[in-house]
Amino acid sequence: MTSLASARGEVLLSEKKFYTFAHPPDLFTLESGVRFGPITVAYETWGELNREKDNAILVLHALTGDSHATGKYHPDDRKEGWWAGAIGPGLALDTDKYFIICSNVLGGCQGTTGPSSINPATGKPYGMSFPVITIRDMVRVQRELLRHLGIEHLRMVIGGSMGGMQALEWIVNFPDMMDKAVVIAVSARMSAQGIAYNLVGRRAIMNDPNWNNGDYYDKEPPRNGLALARMIGMITYQCAESMEMKFGREINCEKEEDLFRMDSRFEVENYLYYQGDALVRRFDANSYLYLCKAMDLYDVARGYESLVDAFSRVQAETLVIGISSDILFPTYQQKEIVQALRAAGKKVYYEEIKSPYGHDAFLIEYDKLNPIIKRFLEK
Amino acid sequence: MTSLASARGEVLLSEKKFYTFAHPPDLFTLESGVRFGPITVAYETWGELNREKDNAILVLHALTGDSHATGKYHPDDRKEGWWAGAIGPGLALDTDKYFIICSNVLGGCQGTTGPSSINPATGKPYGMSFPVITIRDMVRVQRELLRHLGIEHLRMVIGGSMGGMQALEWIVNFPDMMDKAVVIAVSARMSAQGIAYNLVGRRAIMNDPNWNNGDYYDKEPPRNGLALARMIGMITYQCAESMEMKFGREINCEKEEDLFRMDSRFEVENYLYYQGDALVRRFDANSYLYLCKAMDLYDVARGYESLVDAFSRVQAETLVIGISSDILFPTYQQKEIVQALRAAGKKVYYEEIKSPYGHDAFLIEYDKLNPIIKRFLEK
Repeated sequence: MTSLASARGEVLLSEKKFYTFAHPPDLFTLESGVRFGPITVAYETWGELNREKDNAILVLHALTGDSHATGKYHPDDRKEGWWAGAIGPGLALDTDKYFIICSNVLGGCQGTTGPSSINPATGKPYGMSFPVITIRDMVRVQRELLRHLGIEHLRMVIGGSMGGMQALEWIVNFPDMMDKAVVIAVSARMSAQGIAYNLVGRRAIMNDPNWNNGDYYDKEPPRNGLALARMIGMITYQCAESMEMKFGREINCEKEEDLFRMDSRFEVENYLYYQGDALVRRFDANSYLYLCKAMDLYDVARGYESLVDAFSRVQAETLVIGISSDILFPTYQQKEIVQALRAAGKKVYYEEIKSPYGHDAFLIEYDKLNPIIKRFLEK
Repeated sequence: MTSLASARGEVLLSEKKFYTFAHPPDLFTLESGVRFGPITVAYETWGELNREKDNAILVLHALTGDSHATGKYHPDDRKEGWWAGAIGPGLALDTDKYFIICSNVLGGCQGTTGPSSINPATGKPYGMSFPVITIRDMVRVQRELLRHLGIEHLRMVIGGSMGGMQALEWIVNFPDMMDKAVVIAVSARMSAQGIAYNLVGRRAIMNDPNWNNGDYYDKEPPRNGLALARMIGMITYQCAESMEMKFGREINCEKEEDLFRMDSRFEVENYLYYQGDALVRRFDANSYLYLCKAMDLYDVARGYESLVDAFSRVQAETLVIGISSDILFPTYQQKEIVQALRAAGKKVYYEEIKSPYGHDAFLIEYDKLNPIIKRFLEK
């Protein structure tokens, strides 16, 4: 498959592969101390690993992302992977030069072991018996995947949002494993406001009677709850300006008096309903709960005396990117990362993308993002 | 009661009174064209109306407010009204000088006719058969109350958030009824982002099976849904900075491993649960739906050619106040009001309160708010 990556003009093809480890009794010890296994990791790769094995880049996905970061599984697929604008021949993460790896996170629902996976001990999905996991656990699982792929050193780790959390955990916990790191639109620890947003998303799911304490895999899933969690999330991924630009107060009423119906819908409402429904078709509600909890627990400094102390371990050169209109991870949080890395005496660069698109800009503004990443990577 | 208002040092006492109008067949025509009645208005007053009847100030409440803007119903009451820091002897809205009026809005649940009121035609609560109402309807109901009180002119109208929406509808629709207006932390029309936040609050209620299409008054009400709507709202009334200041990442775990439980709660989560439960005890879920819908429909320029055209009717001198950290009604929205009033050739002043408390600052920052209001009122 990977040889197609360099065929300019052709479709970049993807194949989802799997690696399973931590078979009993050799279980994987989570940050919580819980021993857990087996763990299957779903991953995809593009480009070719060179003979020196020094051209690998690990791409880290956000909350509802997956291993399908770019390309198509089949030439007829309607959509490409979630970061197709950044990963491909001639792009910032150039598949002609680099071996790009992306895996679905632990706790996810796109092939990697998560709450919807079958617990081999019971023959039933884990549901809420799945252990609470952390961003650090996700990263340690990725480390096992790289070992399996024979990769002992990465050219770079890169991710935005929850992917950025993973990138920071990578440079702190496996400091000699990479030359560079790109950390986009994230903080060094989840903020109180971020925890609050995640809480209301989780409550939306748990309030849905179909959630049934996580036991719904042979029943009707909590569609309304997960859709509402997504609608809440989508507001925080944008900003006042981008929503005003896109939707304003547009409303589609056949008759003027329809405006005054409780079920009249402004365009922004139609959009949120659409986004909620779209997520329900591809995502597991319990995974949403576990991944949000992992984000809440995220604090790169946990186990260290301070953030600067944690960062004193770092060996990678780091590029931190903020988005001017991000309301979920405002730019002061990226500047805090930069200051702490500097205080620890590390090489760090900061770039701010001026964008009206809010947090989601890292999935939209390729014209601004690609040159910054390319310059940093090839410097 | 009102004579006690000037007794410094004593408790300012309040009494909820009622006025009913629009008895069939003399129904009240709503902005939607629907004819509706009877309408009861719950209201409270403090201070005394002078002989010239020119010292009345109308205070307009926000989403979950009520007529109880200041004072106590009984000296032993634990809490005072919601704006006790601004209304009272010697305060900005000085009950020694002014006759202060506050009424519960149409659609509310604190004494004024709303969806939880008994429909005299059926003997049952209106529920979702209550008509969709608008901010303009609320104001026109207040106009009827003033007529009943024998007040043909106001010294001032004043309100924040949904109260500010009412203040703007007042100066446009009854331009010769007041000398001054104070409009705090609001916009000239609900933004797309504001509609989005209201939508997810409404969905939280409607997703609750106990909501039962609004028919729950003789059953278990949709507590979880209303609590979640409130939790979502509370995030938007604050800001990243205020939540970080108040809660940070504080968590109360007896044992370290409890951190890694799905039900572990950060302090910010405890706070939101508390706020959700508190609202459920005092507020009706259907009222929440109707008032949020009224806010979504809010556009001062509706029926006029433009905002400037609407404002060309204004006779009042207007003070617009923005809050630096407001994420729900960011200050650019207040500046837009100011610009449009200026473009219409009107006397308008703008003040910005520097506060870390977000939207809620207008219920907190009395030290900053009172001097600004007092200066404007007594100028």
